[in-house]
Amino acid sequence: MKIVVDAMGGDYAPQLVIEGAIRAVKDYGADIILVGDEAKIKNELLKHKASRLNIDIQPASEIIEMHEPAAVSVRKKRDSSIVKGINLIKEKKADAFVSAGNTGAVVCAATIALRLLPGIERPGISIIVPTPKGASFLIDVGANINAKPIHLMHYAIMSNSYCHYILNKENPTIGLLNVGEEETKGTDFIRDTFKLLEGSGLNFIGNVEGRDIFSGSCDIIICDGFVGNVVLKVAESLAETIGTFLYRELKRNIITKAGVLLLKSGLKRFKKSLDYSEYGGAPLLGVDGVVIIGHGRSNANAIKNAIRVAKEEVERKVNDNIIESVSHAISSISEEPAIKAD
Amino acid sequence: MKIVVDAMGGDYAPQLVIEGAIRAVKDYGADIILVGDEAKIKNELLKHKASRLNIDIQPASEIIEMHEPAAVSVRKKRDSSIVKGINLIKEKKADAFVSAGNTGAVVCAATIALRLLPGIERPGISIIVPTPKGASFLIDVGANINAKPIHLMHYAIMSNSYCHYILNKENPTIGLLNVGEEETKGTDFIRDTFKLLEGSGLNFIGNVEGRDIFSGSCDIIICDGFVGNVVLKVAESLAETIGTFLYRELKRNIITKAGVLLLKSGLKRFKKSLDYSEYGGAPLLGVDGVVIIGHGRSNANAIKNAIRVAKEEVERKVNDNIIESVSHAISSISEEPAIKAD
Repeated sequence: MKIVVDAMGGDYAPQLVIEGAIRAVKDYGADIILVGDEAKIKNELLKHKASRLNIDIQPASEIIEMHEPAAVSVRKKRDSSIVKGINLIKEKKADAFVSAGNTGAVVCAATIALRLLPGIERPGISIIVPTPKGASFLIDVGANINAKPIHLMHYAIMSNSYCHYILNKENPTIGLLNVGEEETKGTDFIRDTFKLLEGSGLNFIGNVEGRDIFSGSCDIIICDGFVGNVVLKVAESLAETIGTFLYRELKRNIITKAGVLLLKSGLKRFKKSLDYSEYGGAPLLGVDGVVIIGHGRSNANAIKNAIRVAKEEVERKVNDNIIESVSHAISSISEEPAIKAD
Repeated sequence: MKIVVDAMGGDYAPQLVIEGAIRAVKDYGADIILVGDEAKIKNELLKHKASRLNIDIQPASEIIEMHEPAAVSVRKKRDSSIVKGINLIKEKKADAFVSAGNTGAVVCAATIALRLLPGIERPGISIIVPTPKGASFLIDVGANINAKPIHLMHYAIMSNSYCHYILNKENPTIGLLNVGEEETKGTDFIRDTFKLLEGSGLNFIGNVEGRDIFSGSCDIIICDGFVGNVVLKVAESLAETIGTFLYRELKRNIITKAGVLLLKSGLKRFKKSLDYSEYGGAPLLGVDGVVIIGHGRSNANAIKNAIRVAKEEVERKVNDNIIESVSHAISSISEEPAIKAD
């Protein structure tokens, strides 16, 4: 199994990305292809005395920067690390792609080149959020901001498979993000999605609210990409804001420097969980291939874990299971009118 | 000027609500009508030796509970404290209504009985959020989950007046909540809203992201009620989750009880800011009357401040200014085709 890593993607590329890849080779025996600027990659490998490790290089002369518009840059920069990396999966020369680069460009390149799994209409980015009760799964955080109810239904099916095979959660609970718990709450879009989820055969527990996302009251939370993206960014920044409030509070009193250091370390730990460095990146579910998106601020540990998750997703054949579950759901939906006609 | 206070609304009603009203009379010379269960109100006033204060009682035999469906309960419970309280404003027997009760029911009763300001199509609930740089204004957090671009444009106009007259912010900056800063980002709904705001003559700074809400990067953030409601609830619960993570971090180390107490007090302060007890409730903007919605967990201080804000909103004639601004905006929009025809 070969895993392609975008050596040029992320705020700390190529240094920390390559360091993470090297660690993954050593810790998990991963078989890596680094895609990007050949000279820079070789230089980093030399620095880490890793030239003899099982790491190939796929040269790519261009970089899609973090804030470039996704569709345009994917079309124009055919020799970028993202486009060339995804093409290796398309050509079956590798099994998974990991990038901490421009999220929109990864989604766009993967959707165009790899296409979607049979029955799936839109991909979704899922993240693992930290809660006091353990990890919860939030999908979609921005791949699809014009979602239809059927897309959210597919997100639920895909997350269910993912949580089962990767997070080892048997029959995970699934909640639909809404403005209230009652079935009648929300927009037409949400109520239509509710009906689909209710008839899905999944462990759907009904509507959940914003307060349930970080409390750990269900395993999987489904929402459209607009709302999910706002939630993710609010959470990231709120950790900083709360930190500022706490520092001010501590400063009101006479305390030791040790207290401030503890606070900083606690907040850092929380933000790190949100940066999914522990859980290893955000899987892009729905594309016909294994694609893991790392946070822009990914450090070496985050990259290493993203590679581990990519490896597990390939080994445990999550996509095969998704295809089966979706085809089962589609056939049970299309059977319904026949039953009613009886 | 008379301010009606819903004595039965909120988790700590009637005790803390009445205590807050008494404090408002003493501190601000407010002229209060308490609406609700007469015997209970009299009993509380006696307890506080406040029977001689300038407080009237409007008996109401019913209570709309926190989780009752809004429209149905407003229609059925004609003798509830919310419906009777709002009717006092409608009948010009009082000038403002303050309630920490069922938010949906207050919005519904106010919209039906008071109607909307000329030119306004939907009301919006605004909250003041704490940021390291001071207070920011977020609208709408749940009054209108099926918003159109023109509704968001009206929210911007109304917030502009409110921030100017109540928060003393001259020409406040206004941002549109989106998934990215570029003008091309977001749904059709967001892009259409962007165009309206751009031509509004307001101090519109463009798109902002989830991370900007609690960072204080602009004074007013505009969003639809679905997204705003999720953001508000995420923020409330995230403060608790982060607290749990921090306690665990502190427990890993040997520290004094004092450290934990400081942490608790800092977090409490942050959550209190979010509960708008400091800023005094969430104004329901757009209805033809002054209505302030308190958080369900409002304590006496929050109620007192909500009454203060209601008083200021009446005194400073915020609604008159909104009417003028909206009529100005409407006439400049309707002038446009004529200019183009020249």
